[in-house]
Amino acid sequence: MPQITFLPGKLVCEVERGTSIPDAAEKCGAVISFPCACKGACAKCIIKVERGTLEFMDNGKLSEDLKRQGFVLACRSKVMEDVEVLIPSSVNEEMGQFSDALSRTGVNEDFFPKTQDLKPLALCEKLTVATAELLDGLGDYDRLVQAVRRQGSADAVDLPLDLLQRLPDILRENEGEVFIWRADIENTSHIVDITADVPLIDYGAAIDIGTTTVAIQLVDVARGKVIDTITQYNAQIDRGADIISRITYAKNHDRIREMRSLVLSTINRGISDLCGRNGGIPGSAIRNITIAGNTTMVHLFMGIRPEYIRLEPYTPTVMSVPFYRAGALGVEINPNALVWISPNVGSYVGGDITSGILCTDFTKDVEEVCLFIDIGTNGEIVLGNGDFLMGCACSAGPAFEGGGIERGMRASTGAIERVEVDCKTGECRYFVIGGGPAKGICGSGLISLLAQLLDAGIIDLRGKLDRSGKYQTIKVVGKTARYIIVPPGESDPGVYLTEHDIDNFIRAKAAIFSACVTLLNSVGMDFDAIDKFYIAGGFGRYIAIDKAQTLGLLPCIDEEKFLYIGNSSLSGAFMSLLSEKHRNKVAELANRITYIDLSTEAGYMDEYVAAMFLPHTNMNLFRRKESGVETC
Amino acid sequence: MPQITFLPGKLVCEVERGTSIPDAAEKCGAVISFPCACKGACAKCIIKVERGTLEFMDNGKLSEDLKRQGFVLACRSKVMEDVEVLIPSSVNEEMGQFSDALSRTGVNEDFFPKTQDLKPLALCEKLTVATAELLDGLGDYDRLVQAVRRQGSADAVDLPLDLLQRLPDILRENEGEVFIWRADIENTSHIVDITADVPLIDYGAAIDIGTTTVAIQLVDVARGKVIDTITQYNAQIDRGADIISRITYAKNHDRIREMRSLVLSTINRGISDLCGRNGGIPGSAIRNITIAGNTTMVHLFMGIRPEYIRLEPYTPTVMSVPFYRAGALGVEINPNALVWISPNVGSYVGGDITSGILCTDFTKDVEEVCLFIDIGTNGEIVLGNGDFLMGCACSAGPAFEGGGIERGMRASTGAIERVEVDCKTGECRYFVIGGGPAKGICGSGLISLLAQLLDAGIIDLRGKLDRSGKYQTIKVVGKTARYIIVPPGESDPGVYLTEHDIDNFIRAKAAIFSACVTLLNSVGMDFDAIDKFYIAGGFGRYIAIDKAQTLGLLPCIDEEKFLYIGNSSLSGAFMSLLSEKHRNKVAELANRITYIDLSTEAGYMDEYVAAMFLPHTNMNLFRRKESGVETC
Repeated sequence: MPQITFLPGKLVCEVERGTSIPDAAEKCGAVISFPCACKGACAKCIIKVERGTLEFMDNGKLSEDLKRQGFVLACRSKVMEDVEVLIPSSVNEEMGQFSDALSRTGVNEDFFPKTQDLKPLALCEKLTVATAELLDGLGDYDRLVQAVRRQGSADAVDLPLDLLQRLPDILRENEGEVFIWRADIENTSHIVDITADVPLIDYGAAIDIGTTTVAIQLVDVARGKVIDTITQYNAQIDRGADIISRITYAKNHDRIREMRSLVLSTINRGISDLCGRNGGIPGSAIRNITIAGNTTMVHLFMGIRPEYIRLEPYTPTVMSVPFYRAGALGVEINPNALVWISPNVGSYVGGDITSGILCTDFTKDVEEVCLFIDIGTNGEIVLGNGDFLMGCACSAGPAFEGGGIERGMRASTGAIERVEVDCKTGECRYFVIGGGPAKGICGSGLISLLAQLLDAGIIDLRGKLDRSGKYQTIKVVGKTARYIIVPPGESDPGVYLTEHDIDNFIRAKAAIFSACVTLLNSVGMDFDAIDKFYIAGGFGRYIAIDKAQTLGLLPCIDEEKFLYIGNSSLSGAFMSLLSEKHRNKVAELANRITYIDLSTEAGYMDEYVAAMFLPHTNMNLFRRKESGVETC
Repeated sequence: MPQITFLPGKLVCEVERGTSIPDAAEKCGAVISFPCACKGACAKCIIKVERGTLEFMDNGKLSEDLKRQGFVLACRSKVMEDVEVLIPSSVNEEMGQFSDALSRTGVNEDFFPKTQDLKPLALCEKLTVATAELLDGLGDYDRLVQAVRRQGSADAVDLPLDLLQRLPDILRENEGEVFIWRADIENTSHIVDITADVPLIDYGAAIDIGTTTVAIQLVDVARGKVIDTITQYNAQIDRGADIISRITYAKNHDRIREMRSLVLSTINRGISDLCGRNGGIPGSAIRNITIAGNTTMVHLFMGIRPEYIRLEPYTPTVMSVPFYRAGALGVEINPNALVWISPNVGSYVGGDITSGILCTDFTKDVEEVCLFIDIGTNGEIVLGNGDFLMGCACSAGPAFEGGGIERGMRASTGAIERVEVDCKTGECRYFVIGGGPAKGICGSGLISLLAQLLDAGIIDLRGKLDRSGKYQTIKVVGKTARYIIVPPGESDPGVYLTEHDIDNFIRAKAAIFSACVTLLNSVGMDFDAIDKFYIAGGFGRYIAIDKAQTLGLLPCIDEEKFLYIGNSSLSGAFMSLLSEKHRNKVAELANRITYIDLSTEAGYMDEYVAAMFLPHTNMNLFRRKESGVETC
């Protein structure tokens, strides 16, 4: 039997002589996309014959140029002898990395758009524009408008000037047979691009603008696949670590312009890097883009004064965000691309949350009650089911991200991310990200350490360290005790945790836990009512649930109810990029969420104070965990 | 009785004590506009008290700032003692000049929009945006959209990013009471500007882009008045004198960009000059703009390749022209202003003609047959009535504008514009524009001279000069005779007319006359059927009709039927700037015109050849003029 090798993945298998490439690919596990269901019409399943020969029934749509380069349509080809073929997009080259990246987000793939639902905002379609006739009284533009109206549902056509300028040549290049990217919004067809040829890959970008990091995915929108992902620090970070300090900084027009240009520089560098390392894609080849970010990030990205977000009556300028073209917003992709931005719900429940809950059962309108929490500098919480949705936010402070902790740091190389405490001696082993020397401790390390110190009775429920002298690892410096993880060296202070750090942690976890309780109370529920507890945010990926429960950060419910969904804001932006259904769903969910302002909510302060202990003043809430102490 | 003086016009009259300012102004003939019918609501009738005191019932809308500066509302004020008041816009200062300029165009003022029809594309309106309420779930943008929808007819709102950026501050400045410029087009409200205060004058610009000159009017759109007019040479002129040479020059992208930037430089310099000399108006205060130009000028202005205009099947890219914002087009007024461009009908019947026929009875759908002719380098002709409309163009060549004539020049200082020939001696007196020494001869001088030479028998019907030696003013140089108007001096060649020049003139007049005949023939009519014969174009202002008839340029019909309408393209742009009715009328007329291509029209060449004599081979057409010879 002849042997076929699929490059670049080197997937090899033997198949019967005469086996079609689609069948052979399936057998080998090679991924080729067949959008037109193997009718030979879409020319998207091209492969390149690198060695040997395929029987190619050349009756499909494939340009002479590509044929000369050795490409055939996979759907029209059969294996007759040993052959090596290349699946030519970088999509597949990067697939391994992508799958890995995706699986790490923890989002159930059921939530992702199905192939038949793939419908980016600006869909690439073939369009036949009538040929000019002598004295027909119609200009090129008139004939384009006629063709667009015939094909779409919108009456009005919005054609950017540069496309009008290129129109006469494009129409004549291929006798009116063109490809058009068209976004129909509210009775207007917004044209994004018109080309004489169809591109091999139709690119899109999904972006999560976080307060700390900006994550960007380069996406193959026709195949619904992530090609590559990049995450960078938001260049605004030097102008304030959290949302409030960013708002405070952006107090005048110059500062707003500066903040906008900082986040744009991050976004544009990320896009440029992604384009560069995936074969030198021109930015103009990215014709769809979606963005999710918190309310303040969205305002700063758009250059809108964020001040009123935090001034009573807490009115953001944009909740639902109007469409602008990328060129107007300064995003360096195709300047005519329409930028879709996930809607905000309130001052502190923004588009990152509405985008994020696309990754949850909120989308299914079921009776099961879900609680979604995105833990970062701010904690945003959404509670509800098919009947109701409520959202609120609390300021956790930066403790979970290593801020406000003397030796704290973000979860990057050199951070202690986990410890093992000997409950007899109080000494610990620690595990460092990247394996090198420890530079500090990150949020997950903090939780890991504190939970074990609490379990071992080395700290009390107020977070005070045992000063009896029983533990060598505890030192008192001034009025404050500290727990030494890594003793100081000659030139470095070591890594330790002070009682002050623990206070900060307690405040952060109390803010989040009491926000959850208050939201539940407002609808007369308690934690037992929750069927699914989604944990989102970069931080969420690393939390050990039992430890977080020990500390009273997470409630004592079945561990199975907890679902990590990682950067759900980015995953949601990816889904919205691909599917109209998902874009509509975000808008619907955003409309349904009732925004609660905790600062005016009766009972929140009491709940907060009650949660200022480890795990809580109300031990009944953590009874199961109490018994867990004996396991140490 | 107290005496009131209106400045700056120094209109003085005596009125009863207690007379209202509106009544006093009427008595004096001073023009103050009262858009809100004296309800004190619009604050547009402000006047400044320069001397004395007025009784001002301060219960209208007038800002504290203006009050401090001494302004009152004219409609709420009464004359109690001798007083001097200033009507404060440059509108009135320039009114004399404007009226003069307008009367020179010769357009019957009946065609101009009536006060009640004043409706520029972007109308300034007061808008009340709801105040933000705690947790109402609405952003500033949402509340703006609600208010715009309530006030207008459109569902979708298109708000430029810079206005969104300014929105939060503007809304809070005046508690949601704002002024908005909104253009509703095809179910979308395109917002042009939002301000907290209403401007004293709402400016607009009407532009005629001619092949040779660009004329711009600065307009007070709320009062429907021209403030000032400027006419400049089109900076493209060095790249070709006529349309075809411009098209030929603009053969590649760089050249197209160059041509666009040349005409933009002319337009922007003109606007800047107008703004500067009328009190330093910022360009951003101009929020409405209309443009009329021939098909090629419109393409070059928009940066669209003009080549296909002259290649079979003669398809311009734009006939009806989509709206773009001024910023996108590069016009330096308010960047968000929507640019309205008069529609084209065919390759050589463009927006200058559709705009121009707004100044004719074509707009009235009557039975009377009208013929409109715009004479320049190209001659464009429209024929019809309420039942039919046909348009065509012919290439007259530059003879009427002094081109192709050895000593020809445009109608500017130093040009001979009229001559008086002594039919006995053949000598002539001449009249020079500006009164100084003669530098050359312009189109009207040419017609004046040739008609008299023909009448006197000094040239024959083929345009050949009498070489008998009878006339001292005729010299033969080489094979060609010439008629000397101004003998050569020491350093200058003098002014003269060669037989070759006469040939060029004959070709030009033959092109135009035969085009008219062919158009009439195509509907089975002759010149007798014409009730009104409109002559437009800069050149048209100076033609002596009897002379033009003598030469066979114009047909022998009653002189009363001829109507000069000057730069009707500019007048039409002015009307379209002011009135929706007129914009709709242009579109309707443009749709109704059947474009005839003379080059494919049977009979045109025969008519052309027949018209290559003075006045014509068919003398019957000019019988009345024949008898006129005897008057010499």
